Amino acid sequence: MITAKLQATALAHPNIAFIKYWGNRDDQLRLPLTGSLSMALDGLDTVTHVSFDPDLAADRFILNGMEQSGAALNRVASFLDHVRQLAGINLFAQVESSNNYPSSAGIASSAAAFAALALAATKAAGLELGEAGLSRLARLGSGSACRSVPGGFAEWLPGSGDADSYAVQIAPPEHWDLVDLIVVVDRSEKAVGSSAGHKLAATSPLQALRVAGVPERLEQCRTAILMRDFERLAQVVELDSEWMHAVMRTSNPPLYYWTPATEVVIWNVRAWRAQGHAVCATVDAGPNVHVIALAEEAAWAEAQLRALPGVLEVLKAKPGGGARIIN
Amino acid sequence: MITAKLQATALAHPNIAFIKYWGNRDDQLRLPLTGSLSMALDGLDTVTHVSFDPDLAADRFILNGMEQSGAALNRVASFLDHVRQLAGINLFAQVESSNNYPSSAGIASSAAAFAALALAATKAAGLELGEAGLSRLARLGSGSACRSVPGGFAEWLPGSGDADSYAVQIAPPEHWDLVDLIVVVDRSEKAVGSSAGHKLAATSPLQALRVAGVPERLEQCRTAILMRDFERLAQVVELDSEWMHAVMRTSNPPLYYWTPATEVVIWNVRAWRAQGHAVCATVDAGPNVHVIALAEEAAWAEAQLRALPGVLEVLKAKPGGGARIIN
Repeated sequence: MITAKLQATALAHPNIAFIKYWGNRDDQLRLPLTGSLSMALDGLDTVTHVSFDPDLAADRFILNGMEQSGAALNRVASFLDHVRQLAGINLFAQVESSNNYPSSAGIASSAAAFAALALAATKAAGLELGEAGLSRLARLGSGSACRSVPGGFAEWLPGSGDADSYAVQIAPPEHWDLVDLIVVVDRSEKAVGSSAGHKLAATSPLQALRVAGVPERLEQCRTAILMRDFERLAQVVELDSEWMHAVMRTSNPPLYYWTPATEVVIWNVRAWRAQGHAVCATVDAGPNVHVIALAEEAAWAEAQLRALPGVLEVLKAKPGGGARIIN
Repeated sequence: MITAKLQATALAHPNIAFIKYWGNRDDQLRLPLTGSLSMALDGLDTVTHVSFDPDLAADRFILNGMEQSGAALNRVASFLDHVRQLAGINLFAQVESSNNYPSSAGIASSAAAFAALALAATKAAGLELGEAGLSRLARLGSGSACRSVPGGFAEWLPGSGDADSYAVQIAPPEHWDLVDLIVVVDRSEKAVGSSAGHKLAATSPLQALRVAGVPERLEQCRTAILMRDFERLAQVVELDSEWMHAVMRTSNPPLYYWTPATEVVIWNVRAWRAQGHAVCATVDAGPNVHVIALAEEAAWAEAQLRALPGVLEVLKAKPGGGARIIN
C-alpha cells in the first residue's frame, strides 16, 4: 500500500538574526529587500510529522497536540499546495508539529516550523530538493525559515528572484562556541506579527537608510564570524538591531515592541561589555532580548541576567544544525 | 535716592549638554549625582532686568511681557530670597525677562533664565560674587543654569556640597568652531518638566549604571573638546544622550520624550556621519534634537535636516559666552 511511504518526520531549529530581515521587495514570494544572517539555536527543536493520506478530505494541522483551524491551518495548507504542485500529487496531509520550547517564551517559531515542514512534506511526497531548493521552498512559508534549513551560521542571499533567494551555511555550528541567552521579559502574544510588520517597513522614513547600510553590515558580520572576532560581531549585531527597531518605531503606525525591561537588559549588556565581557544584545520583533555571549561567559552572564528586574526566564542555546529527517 | 542704584540688566545664553545632568543627590540644593558638560548657545539670548524697589509689596515677574503668577512667580521669588539673604536687604523686586527665541522651540530656557537672574539680581543688590559664586547661586534656581554662568564650553563640577558645586569654563567659545542646529519636531509643552524628571531618575534600574559611566564619558568629552577631535566628541555625546534617555524610558513612570520624528533625525545624522560628515545628535528632556556639527558642515547639514519629514524648524547657534551685565 502506497500510504505507508508518504510520510516523514523532520526536525529544525529556530534561528536568531544577527543581521535582520525586515521588509520585502515581494510580499507574496517573501523576497527580501536585503540579505540577512543568523545562527540556528540548538536545543530548541520543532519536530514535524507529515503524512499525505488518501483518506483525508482536507489538510489537518495539529500543533503541540491541538487541532488548528483558521489562519494557522490556512497558512500550512497553502504551503502544502506548493509541495503538491512540485510533487504532482493531489493528496491532503496531516501535519503534526510540536516545539520543545514554550510558545510563551516569545521565540519566533515560524522559522523552525516551515523549515521542518518543508523538509518533512517534500520527503513524504518523495521529493529530494537539495539544500538550496529546500531553503527556497521554506522561504515561501516564512522568510526566516530559509535560514533554518542549512542551519549553523547561515546567510540568506536575497537573490534576483524566487529561484535564487535562499540561505547558505557560511560556517558550521561547531565553528564558534557562542551561546544565545534568550531573556524573556514578556510572555504576552505580540500585537503585530512579523508578516504584517514587514509590510509596514516601507512606511518608515528610515527604512531606505537602513537598507542602504545592510551590505556593509553583512560584510562586517560575516567577517566577524569567520574570524571569530567577538567585539566586531557585537558592534555590528547591536547596530543592526538598533536600525531595525528605529525603523519599526518610525513606521506608520509605529511598532513599539520594547518594554522598559527590554531596555534594562540591553543597557546592562552594554555596560558588561564595556567592562570587558564578551556579550552583546539583539532583539527580534518582540520585547525579549537575545544575549549573544562567548560560551565561557555564558554562566556568568546568565546569573547576571537572572538578577535583573523584569527578567522572567532565561533560555540557553548553542549554535544548531540544519533541518534534518529524524525517522 | 537709593532706588536708582538697585537695578541691573544681565544677558545669558541657554546651553546644550554634551554630557547630561540627570538626577540629584540633593533635590533641594540641586546637587547633582554627576558632573556634566555643555556648550553655551550664542544668539539665543535671555535678557533680565531686576530692580529692588521699596514701593513693592511683593515680588513681580514679567516674562516676555506677560505678568506671571503661581509656580513661575514662586520659583523666582524663592530665588530672590537667596539673593536678599546674601545681600542683607529686605526689598521686593520686579524681574522683567525676555527671550529672543521662541518658547515653542522647546529650548530649555531655565538655564539662561537663572544665570541672567543670578547676575542681574546680585548686581542690583550690590553683590559681587565672582564667577564661581554666581554659578553656585544660579544652580539653586536651575541646575543647568550654573553652566550658563561661565559659558563657552563649561563643566559643572559636582562638588562635595553646596559650596563647591559650580561650573567652570574649560574652553572659551572661540576655541572650537562648532554649531548647534536645533531641530524642532514638536512645539507642544512637555508633560514632565526637568525638575520633576530628576526626581524620577532614581526609579530607573539603569540610573546607577548610567551614573557609574559618567566620569569616563566626561573625560572623553573634555579631551575631545580640548583636542578638537570631532569623531571622539560625536561618539561620547551620542552615547551619553542614549544613556539618559534609556534611564528616562525605564523610570517609573516611564518618560518617553521622543517622537518618531526625533528618531528620524537621530538616525539620519548617524548615517551622514558614517558617510564622513562631522555631525552628531543629542537630545535633552524633550523631543527636539540638537545636531552638533563642525561650522563648515552647518549649511549642508541644515539643508539636509530641513528636508526630513517631521522637521518644523531649525535654529542655529554658535558657542556663546557667559552671563554678563549689559547696561
